[in-house]
Amino acid sequence: MKFTILTLFPEFFQGFTESSIIKKSLDRELIQIEIKNIRDFSTNKHNKTDDYPYGGGPGMVMTPQPIADSIRYVKEKDPGAKVVYFTPRGKVFTQEDARGFAREGSYILLCGHYEGVDQRIIDKYVDVEISAGDFILTGGEIPALIFMDALTRLQEGVLGNEESASDESFSENLLEYPQYTRPPLFEDLEVPEVLLSGNHKEIDRWRLEKSLEITERLRPDLYEKHLGG
Amino acid sequence: MKFTILTLFPEFFQGFTESSIIKKSLDRELIQIEIKNIRDFSTNKHNKTDDYPYGGGPGMVMTPQPIADSIRYVKEKDPGAKVVYFTPRGKVFTQEDARGFAREGSYILLCGHYEGVDQRIIDKYVDVEISAGDFILTGGEIPALIFMDALTRLQEGVLGNEESASDESFSENLLEYPQYTRPPLFEDLEVPEVLLSGNHKEIDRWRLEKSLEITERLRPDLYEKHLGG
Repeated sequence: MKFTILTLFPEFFQGFTESSIIKKSLDRELIQIEIKNIRDFSTNKHNKTDDYPYGGGPGMVMTPQPIADSIRYVKEKDPGAKVVYFTPRGKVFTQEDARGFAREGSYILLCGHYEGVDQRIIDKYVDVEISAGDFILTGGEIPALIFMDALTRLQEGVLGNEESASDESFSENLLEYPQYTRPPLFEDLEVPEVLLSGNHKEIDRWRLEKSLEITERLRPDLYEKHLGG
Repeated sequence: MKFTILTLFPEFFQGFTESSIIKKSLDRELIQIEIKNIRDFSTNKHNKTDDYPYGGGPGMVMTPQPIADSIRYVKEKDPGAKVVYFTPRGKVFTQEDARGFAREGSYILLCGHYEGVDQRIIDKYVDVEISAGDFILTGGEIPALIFMDALTRLQEGVLGNEESASDESFSENLLEYPQYTRPPLFEDLEVPEVLLSGNHKEIDRWRLEKSLEITERLRPDLYEKHLGG
C-alpha cells in the first residue's frame, strides 16, 4: 500500500511517520509514504499556492496549477493511484469505507488548506472526496492521518498480538465491551468477578451483554443497524 | 486555552505543534500545549504501562496506575482541567461540540492505545468520552489532534484573514459552495460567469443555491436539519 501526500505542510507528518505502528509498517515495508510539498510545483515566481476567491469573501483558495502539476507528477510513475481529497463535503469516513479502500493499493492524498482548493481541481482530478466528520479543521492533514492509520491497521502483517484487529465491533455495529487488567482491586474499584472466573462461556456472554447495553445506550443509531443487520 | 496531552507516543505530536495555525497560536500564547508521557508515571520497575485483559482475548489493556497518577499530577496544578478520553464509545464529535468545548479553558487529553484503558480509569477519572467517528484508529492521538485543531480555530485572535472562520457552514447545517480563484480559464475549465460579474447580490444567491444543492445531494441528513432549523 502506498500513500503519496500532497500538502503545504510536509513537516506536519513527521511525528506520525516516526511513531507506533506506522513507523513499524514503514520499517517493514508493509506500507510506503511519500510526502510532496505542493509549493515545490508552483510555477509562480514567488511560489504562490493560493489566491483570493472569485466573487469575494474571506479566506484564500488554493490555486489549481501547482496541485494539477503535482498530481500529474505522481501519476506519471503511478498511473493507477486514486486521488483522495479531504473536505467536509465528502462522504463521512467509516470503518466500512476503510475496509473497501484497504483492498486497493495506491492513494494520492490531497490536503487542502484555507478555504480549500479550486473547484476545477476537484472536477477534473479528484476521484473521491472524503470527510473526517462534521467538524471544521485547519486543513486536510489530520483527515489524511485518519485515512492512513485506518487503512494501515487493516494491512496483513501490520498488527501484532499487542495491538490486535479489534474492528469486529464496528462490523457488527456494536461498540466494544469494557476492558480490565491487573490489579484486581485498583483504588476502590474491583474488576467484575465474572472476568476472573475462568469460565469462558460466561465471559463471552457478559461481554456481549455489555456491548449490546453500551451500544443501545450510547449509540441507538448503531444499535438499530445491529438489530437490522 | 490549555491542552495537556497524556500519551505513550509524545513524539507523535511534534509535527502538529510545529506547523500552521497551531504553531502560530503557540508562539502568540493564544493556546498552551503540554505533552506528558504516561510511561514516566509508571511505578512498575520496567515502566510497564499495559497488561493482558482479564477474561482473555487479543491485545493489551493500559494499566490504571500510570494513568491515574499522571491525571493527578496535572490536576494538582490545574484542578479545573476536564479529562477527555478518546474512544469509539464516545459521543461522535461535531462542530457544535467544538463550539461548546471552546468556551472552557483547560483539557487533559487522554490518548488510549492497544485495546484502550482499564474501565476503572474511565469510571473514576474521565469527564467526557469523545469519538472522532465510526472508524478504528491505532490510538487516541489523532482524535486529540482533531479536538485541539477544531477548538484552537475557534479561539479569538487565532484566525487571520488568510484562513477565516468558515464554520458558518455547519452552524446552518449547510455544506460550503464551490470556490474558484485565478486563472479564469484553467486547462479547459472556466470559472462560473456569475463569480466574475461583480454583482454581489447575484453572487450571494448563486452561492446559497449551490450550498443548498450540494447539501441536499451529498448530505440529505444535514439538509433535513437545515430545513428543520
